Amino acid sequence: MSQARFTRRRRNLIARIRKLGLPALLVTDESNVTWLTGFTGDSSYLLIGPKLGVLISDTRYTVQIAEECSGLDVEIRDARRPMHDAIATVTTAAKLGALGFEAHSTSMATWERISAAIAGSNGGPELVSVGMVVNELRAKKDSGEIAEIRLAVHQAERGFAAMVSVLEADKTELEVAHELEHLMRRFGAEGPAFEPIVAVGPRAALPHARPGPTLIGESGFVLFDWGAKTTGGYRSDLTRVLLTSKIPPKLEAIYGVVLNAQRKGIKAIRPGATLKSVDRAARRVIENAGYGKFFGHGLGHGIGLDIHEEPRFSPVAEGVLEPGMVITVEPGIYLPGWGGVRIEDDVLVTRDGHEVLTSVPKRFEDAVVQIA
Amino acid sequence: MSQARFTRRRRNLIARIRKLGLPALLVTDESNVTWLTGFTGDSSYLLIGPKLGVLISDTRYTVQIAEECSGLDVEIRDARRPMHDAIATVTTAAKLGALGFEAHSTSMATWERISAAIAGSNGGPELVSVGMVVNELRAKKDSGEIAEIRLAVHQAERGFAAMVSVLEADKTELEVAHELEHLMRRFGAEGPAFEPIVAVGPRAALPHARPGPTLIGESGFVLFDWGAKTTGGYRSDLTRVLLTSKIPPKLEAIYGVVLNAQRKGIKAIRPGATLKSVDRAARRVIENAGYGKFFGHGLGHGIGLDIHEEPRFSPVAEGVLEPGMVITVEPGIYLPGWGGVRIEDDVLVTRDGHEVLTSVPKRFEDAVVQIA
Repeated sequence: MSQARFTRRRRNLIARIRKLGLPALLVTDESNVTWLTGFTGDSSYLLIGPKLGVLISDTRYTVQIAEECSGLDVEIRDARRPMHDAIATVTTAAKLGALGFEAHSTSMATWERISAAIAGSNGGPELVSVGMVVNELRAKKDSGEIAEIRLAVHQAERGFAAMVSVLEADKTELEVAHELEHLMRRFGAEGPAFEPIVAVGPRAALPHARPGPTLIGESGFVLFDWGAKTTGGYRSDLTRVLLTSKIPPKLEAIYGVVLNAQRKGIKAIRPGATLKSVDRAARRVIENAGYGKFFGHGLGHGIGLDIHEEPRFSPVAEGVLEPGMVITVEPGIYLPGWGGVRIEDDVLVTRDGHEVLTSVPKRFEDAVVQIA
Repeated sequence: MSQARFTRRRRNLIARIRKLGLPALLVTDESNVTWLTGFTGDSSYLLIGPKLGVLISDTRYTVQIAEECSGLDVEIRDARRPMHDAIATVTTAAKLGALGFEAHSTSMATWERISAAIAGSNGGPELVSVGMVVNELRAKKDSGEIAEIRLAVHQAERGFAAMVSVLEADKTELEVAHELEHLMRRFGAEGPAFEPIVAVGPRAALPHARPGPTLIGESGFVLFDWGAKTTGGYRSDLTRVLLTSKIPPKLEAIYGVVLNAQRKGIKAIRPGATLKSVDRAARRVIENAGYGKFFGHGLGHGIGLDIHEEPRFSPVAEGVLEPGMVITVEPGIYLPGWGGVRIEDDVLVTRDGHEVLTSVPKRFEDAVVQIA
């Protein structure tokens, strides 16, 4: 990506930092650091404000930072010098009166160490807890990011179609999950967006099932929750249920409720809609069908550099949708011991509504597959 | 793993909590929760003390917890009820006067929310910041854990040997990294312990290089840093440099220094040795050869459920080695623009010394491979 993109993001952040009345913010969330600088390593913080921009890292990353970043000062520490010392050096040099830090990604231990290190003879700068300012900026994707997510969707969908074409009843969940990862890479993915879920029959009742030794043919249906990560670091996230043999009527009924709920959720997506109202639109369908207590999670989450990011669809979420946000819509019904159905797509909020970025068929009849 | 193992670990932790004078500790570090309970999901905390043991989770995990854990109370929340509310319910019911929490894994934002939620009419229990008590217990592996790490080493080594046997000059770093992951799975790994590093020539100067489009045959040497994760969740971590064509004499010299440093580091490992002294034993060799400033990271780190855990070998680490610890020894020399050499093995501290768990040959002559 061009450096201009990172400069623009930092400029937008600096405007927010000014509004907070702070001279600087310490960015400790790794994905936020990547989004603001292009740097893809870890263990590095960005200190940024109207008058400074310093990436604080260590000698492992000297060369990589020179390759990936520009327009920033760099403070490099070695194995003898802990992060909090390097932060103190930079804040002292900048004569900061106060220092904001990201509360969601700064541990109490880190805070205690930074606090002790920056306390000079005059007490040092005041530490101010700051909310998810950078994450909120990240929630609205720019054109380059949307293109990356489209690519991640493409890689996930091509990989999935190829996996279905070679699916066999005597393969284990884990073997199929590995095959799916392999095939997404075959279509250009750097890797999976997260460890894929492949859950046969009753195992689909676990919303976060880990693939195991169960055979694909052991039950009549399989749930897949998967996504790809592009080499640019962006992610997709889909869920589908495939029907591999004679279908219990109960499954068809539940599938219908979930699909209806998912469509209602998607339909509610447009700029200005509250996050709560979209969750409500889908959840109501499931509640009306009598399955409310079997849908315990939120309706969806933003995707981007992280697999779960802002905003969130949930009964208690605050905020409204804005153009450029990309969010999953993934209602589910989970019946312990019996199985579960979840259907998930990735949706872009457009100027006048929404665009569903994912296109794997999801009608009940589409879900029926022949396996050997 | 048998439930007795988790009960024993919790009993040991409770003894530590008593010593700290606390009625309970809130365990927020995911790997610590797994180690204490067997639960392999995320987003769940363990509240534990002499008189209570409660796993606080959400509806996505109800079934999984019943499968994986026993001997614990469970507090399940749904999408309407945030984690801090569930914590408040449990702490109020237990009438706790104080509550320790893991400072390294509790964000300031979480702390602020818990703090507000548990403040009852009488102010609620006092929140007390606690160090890495569980992580310190985890540093000493029991026999089951050592067996798991041996398995992770085996999977990594079998996969690596197979990868070398099919290595070709016209494959990219990324293709080879994927092949290596695939082959480790072929030998039973659940997946890689971390995203493998495959770094050709000058790219080996980046200690944390990401595999990219560079061809294996573009330079005379390739650095591999890889490991396997078992289905039980335990990890291995190795680094080797392979020489794929005519070797620059400078590489041979640097290789010799790094190998000598690594052997000296390993030799210093025994119960009672300080973490600093082991780092020193290896670092001195590199400094004496004039490359001190090109070895900027610590000498090694514990491995287990996490790829980086306690203890750490570094010039500033405090503490001593104890039997049962498993640590990497991985000195390196990195010359920007030219390349780098790192050699890494996994070492178990035994009652009377150490045992090197990894066995991939590492003499300079062993590193020479023929590729097509």
